[in-house]
Amino acid sequence: MPTRIPAAVLGATGSVGQRFVQLLDDHPWFEVVALTGSDRSVGKCYGEACHWILPESMPDWARPIQIVPTTPAALDVALVFSALPASVARKAEVDLAQAGILVCSNASAYRQAEDVPILLPEINPDHTGLLENQRKAHGWSGGIVTNPNCTSTGVSVTLKVLQNAFGLRRVFMVSMQALSGAGYPGVASLDILDNVIPYIANEEEKVEWEARKILGAYTGEGIDLADFGISAHTNRVAVSDGHMVCLSVELEQPVGVEEAAHVLTEYAAPEESRDLPTAPRPVVLLRSEPDRPQPRLDRMTGNGMTTVVGRLRPDPLFHLKMVVLSHNTIRGAAGGSIYNAELLVRQGWLSAAA
Amino acid sequence: MPTRIPAAVLGATGSVGQRFVQLLDDHPWFEVVALTGSDRSVGKCYGEACHWILPESMPDWARPIQIVPTTPAALDVALVFSALPASVARKAEVDLAQAGILVCSNASAYRQAEDVPILLPEINPDHTGLLENQRKAHGWSGGIVTNPNCTSTGVSVTLKVLQNAFGLRRVFMVSMQALSGAGYPGVASLDILDNVIPYIANEEEKVEWEARKILGAYTGEGIDLADFGISAHTNRVAVSDGHMVCLSVELEQPVGVEEAAHVLTEYAAPEESRDLPTAPRPVVLLRSEPDRPQPRLDRMTGNGMTTVVGRLRPDPLFHLKMVVLSHNTIRGAAGGSIYNAELLVRQGWLSAAA
Amino acid sequence: MPTRIPAAVLGATGSVGQRFVQLLDDHPWFEVVALTGSDRSVGKCYGEACHWILPESMPDWARPIQIVPTTPAALDVALVFSALPASVARKAEVDLAQAGILVCSNASAYRQAEDVPILLPEINPDHTGLLENQRKAHGWSGGIVTNPNCTSTGVSVTLKVLQNAFGLRRVFMVSMQALSGAGYPGVASLDILDNVIPYIANEEEKVEWEARKILGAYTGEGIDLADFGISAHTNRVAVSDGHMVCLSVELEQPVGVEEAAHVLTEYAAPEESRDLPTAPRPVVLLRSEPDRPQPRLDRMTGNGMTTVVGRLRPDPLFHLKMVVLSHNTIRGAAGGSIYNAELLVRQGWLSAAA
Amino acid sequence: MPTRIPAAVLGATGSVGQRFVQLLDDHPWFEVVALTGSDRSVGKCYGEACHWILPESMPDWARPIQIVPTTPAALDVALVFSALPASVARKAEVDLAQAGILVCSNASAYRQAEDVPILLPEINPDHTGLLENQRKAHGWSGGIVTNPNCTSTGVSVTLKVLQNAFGLRRVFMVSMQALSGAGYPGVASLDILDNVIPYIANEEEKVEWEARKILGAYTGEGIDLADFGISAHTNRVAVSDGHMVCLSVELEQPVGVEEAAHVLTEYAAPEESRDLPTAPRPVVLLRSEPDRPQPRLDRMTGNGMTTVVGRLRPDPLFHLKMVVLSHNTIRGAAGGSIYNAELLVRQGWLSAAA
Repeated sequence: MPTRIPAAVLGATGSVGQRFVQLLDDHPWFEVVALTGSDRSVGKCYGEACHWILPESMPDWARPIQIVPTTPAALDVALVFSALPASVARKAEVDLAQAGILVCSNASAYRQAEDVPILLPEINPDHTGLLENQRKAHGWSGGIVTNPNCTSTGVSVTLKVLQNAFGLRRVFMVSMQALSGAGYPGVASLDILDNVIPYIANEEEKVEWEARKILGAYTGEGIDLADFGISAHTNRVAVSDGHMVCLSVELEQPVGVEEAAHVLTEYAAPEESRDLPTAPRPVVLLRSEPDRPQPRLDRMTGNGMTTVVGRLRPDPLFHLKMVVLSHNTIRGAAGGSIYNAELLVRQGWLSAAA
Repeated sequence: MPTRIPAAVLGATGSVGQRFVQLLDDHPWFEVVALTGSDRSVGKCYGEACHWILPESMPDWARPIQIVPTTPAALDVALVFSALPASVARKAEVDLAQAGILVCSNASAYRQAEDVPILLPEINPDHTGLLENQRKAHGWSGGIVTNPNCTSTGVSVTLKVLQNAFGLRRVFMVSMQALSGAGYPGVASLDILDNVIPYIANEEEKVEWEARKILGAYTGEGIDLADFGISAHTNRVAVSDGHMVCLSVELEQPVGVEEAAHVLTEYAAPEESRDLPTAPRPVVLLRSEPDRPQPRLDRMTGNGMTTVVGRLRPDPLFHLKMVVLSHNTIRGAAGGSIYNAELLVRQGWLSAAA
Repeated sequence: MPTRIPAAVLGATGSVGQRFVQLLDDHPWFEVVALTGSDRSVGKCYGEACHWILPESMPDWARPIQIVPTTPAALDVALVFSALPASVARKAEVDLAQAGILVCSNASAYRQAEDVPILLPEINPDHTGLLENQRKAHGWSGGIVTNPNCTSTGVSVTLKVLQNAFGLRRVFMVSMQALSGAGYPGVASLDILDNVIPYIANEEEKVEWEARKILGAYTGEGIDLADFGISAHTNRVAVSDGHMVCLSVELEQPVGVEEAAHVLTEYAAPEESRDLPTAPRPVVLLRSEPDRPQPRLDRMTGNGMTTVVGRLRPDPLFHLKMVVLSHNTIRGAAGGSIYNAELLVRQGWLSAAA
Repeated sequence: MPTRIPAAVLGATGSVGQRFVQLLDDHPWFEVVALTGSDRSVGKCYGEACHWILPESMPDWARPIQIVPTTPAALDVALVFSALPASVARKAEVDLAQAGILVCSNASAYRQAEDVPILLPEINPDHTGLLENQRKAHGWSGGIVTNPNCTSTGVSVTLKVLQNAFGLRRVFMVSMQALSGAGYPGVASLDILDNVIPYIANEEEKVEWEARKILGAYTGEGIDLADFGISAHTNRVAVSDGHMVCLSVELEQPVGVEEAAHVLTEYAAPEESRDLPTAPRPVVLLRSEPDRPQPRLDRMTGNGMTTVVGRLRPDPLFHLKMVVLSHNTIRGAAGGSIYNAELLVRQGWLSAAA
């Protein structure tokens, strides 16, 4: 194996941090050489500090790594994956970018910042141009790239494909979100057994805004938000992984089910992001059974990176109804950030950073 | 206790049939004197033939009742509650109506018939006028009255209140439906553990049509379907009882949250249906917590007859977003039919029938 | 209604505290006049401080009660129900007993104290004699009475009935315990969905010891621990309420299933505890179906106070196998403490205290 | 790849049949060339006839295979894997053995037959000697080999290791079994949500007997049942895959936890079964965390073939307490039969058959 790029995982003991560690096991391009954690964990080895909650075993190489603080001084790498809580990310990620480090972040802290991309390489790889804007504006030699909220991910991929082909006017979406989206310990078992919780704090606002940025156009100056209407209801259900969304979509003109099916099935990622190690294969899988996708059966499609669409059918009010499933901790979190980092390497941002 | 009206439960061994038996225990007006079942059960006593699945105990009076076939000859009553499967109901309910019996049915067989009301006494008690049309058209001395599909119930109550006050244009709805809605054994446990099933056969079509009939106007000739658009997605989730629906509503003109809240809270059933024994008290309960209603906590509101609304807030595309919860086997099935029967008694249809 | 005895609930905002408040609604003998909570809650009214998690509504009388600290000075009552965490109970309950207050406690802090009874009025009402020992030893005018760990409750009732009739030698027990036994938020949903946790901290030790005390003999000096062997495995399962235990029992001599069934069915509580308001009716319900008891169907038997036994059959190694179900937050917690208080009133301890 | 041995899966559309098809995808020694099903499926292709319920996709090679009846005439193979229902297996498996075919069966039909081994290659590979007895007794040129009931599997592996080292006297076991053990559709969702079912028809009898046969000695004449006492309680819980068992074990003499841990950890399968393609690696994994194994986290250990033991600790009545987890549809069903077939090939039974 050629030399891999040394990288760190920030906030490595939490649920998303664990997913980063698991997915980066044997990654062909990146090698995890550092793990950071809160004051409570610093100095302990990862195997001891981390209450591992994934069915996949903790990789052996991770166990002895000693946890360090989330500061530039403690990290001798040019690339970090951030699973920090938003409140911590706010300062730490800027410090790191300032210090010349590329931050691929799953935190929400900077998703709304004008010059920070919310990146989905299979649909908007040119948004990384914002890194140039960041560097000019703040004098950074590194930079910050985020992936979307886990609920926005599958929806944005689907909508972008439709937008490209037909233009997009209005979207109704209702999510049924997995427990792992709330972190660990997250949702109390007594709150969700035999139950649905029709509320996730701040989620609807995030989702209604993010999709318009992700589907927006990079102009060199910044992102022009995509101009479509969107209404979201978000719910928590008793599912471990995999966010489902019911979607009703109004396009620029009436589009039939077959035409839309063709477009979704044929969609290929732009060439620069198509064959990256973590790229979804395929980007979208359209299922034709009447009762799919389902989280338990379909969330691991394409190693958890594929957006699975099903039940494509006419909508009595708008044009199309469908169901979208995306793995919230893989495509919608750690896997997404890793894919982002691969794109940055491919585009040459990393050598520029180091 | 004054003499109660003798009644029968049709299809008494199934899950809805059991709910009828349980809810009619100690009913002030009705006394169950006969239970019907399929050939397999006929001749056995109920306690032996019925695999009881409710947490409430089987009433002692029901155990020794010998199950009879679902035919006019076997039933010496003027009122029956039908929990028959649609395929059986199609013939049996007509035979009974012909024989002078009033059929309060939970079956879907005749919901779409022009002269059969889909009755929700708290919002459309005048639809019973269709009984007159039935009698004229078919020469029946009895008649058939249905209650809606369990998913339409809470939604229709809510929409009717809004329609009355503001006029109704368009509705998006996404349901998260309980397992008991599929009967027993119904959904396989392996299909729903850690899962959502985004499909319920024929449910979306039913729901999109029924609401327009329920909210329609009785003209003496028949029902003028209400003129509004509706798009429904229906899903099955791991909840025992209680159907949740996310609703986005467009009214005739913009309406604020406070105004709508006032109207929902103040709604009272028409006088004739307001104080019936099974009437919901209140018709609508509007909850103000950000995360309610929830099935486990709120389904038994008003003994399972109240429609619980929550999360009333502005909708970015239409006017209002909200969540509606209704107990699917009580308000949405057996309890609804019993309430219908009480209205028929109050309106004098029963003496006319007997 | 005659004047009711004023009482306080200690630790009223937690999950067991809420159950006390709910069960004491309309209690014929006791009236809740004070609620205590942690520093964070003190001064707030209960309706605001408490995140209510029960399906039954919070009683209206409780909402405006202002939460006070758990100290004798803040409480003008002669009787308190304690839902305190063990660490807090350790000091607070002694202070209250010292101050002349009778403490009916669900906390584990003093269950192992030599002069504190673990009381189950239907089987060991004479253990309250230890209150005399407490008063002598510590100079208290009040006293402390505990109920058992929720897992010990149903098992102890069952074993005591068998011990009385046949003598008891050895017991194997394996529990499958409900989530509410861990309090709120308690078990994380990600830990229990599609899972079993074969471990509950310190539970096996507690259960193996407590049963011997509960079934022991009060000698005037103290309790002679019952002399039988016991081995316990404890597990957490995805059930909201209701602890199930598989039990294999060796008696002093071989006993047949019918004989044991007769004894369990015929058992009546001692006269002084038999007709108290919260007494289980019956003490033991023996079910004969092959697949009962089940938590969802049977936990509310006798308003959640009855011990439900089923699957009584021969054991290939010992004498009898059976399954025992008991509602862990009613019979096994709040309901148990209330029943204890009723016994203390009946036995005259309260007037002596006040 | 060298030529693989052609094989058929009997009863391929059911839940265990599907697991066979999935596990035999890319098997190094066996190639599935035929699939059988009931009359309803015969003539259809597998992709159409089978309602696939596994998260892993149906292998592409399986889709076009046309389903044939379960008769010797329809099958041109020397090896079959049977996922037949016991009632069908009773005739079909004998017909096939008669016709010279080796039947590796997951069915219970012949587990109790004197000359049919219940085979676990890692602990009793010499039991295949019974094939000789079968051939002599019935004049077969093929033969029948079964794997145990899914609940017996992990328990028998564990007990055999302890028996070898210390001798075995008595065993108490209580199972918490997964839903997939009941097949599909199997357990109704309404029966298991928020519930435990303390009963599985005939399971306790099977388990109490089978373990004694599996741990018995092959004498040339037959199997001498192992001489130890066993008492089993079996329960169904809301887990998809993975049977958990709480075990209390009495050995020939007192054995400490460390000594037993050493023996379990060091156990290696006999040489002939150690490095077969499907052999568990390791045979037993002993976990030292206080709260493991757990079904969701540990069932896939060793690709679902390893027996996971945890919570090894002293037992107050017997000598040792522990928890055992085994994947019921892999080690306990399809994977077990495949491992059996590999042993038969290694031992040379197959060429003798063909």
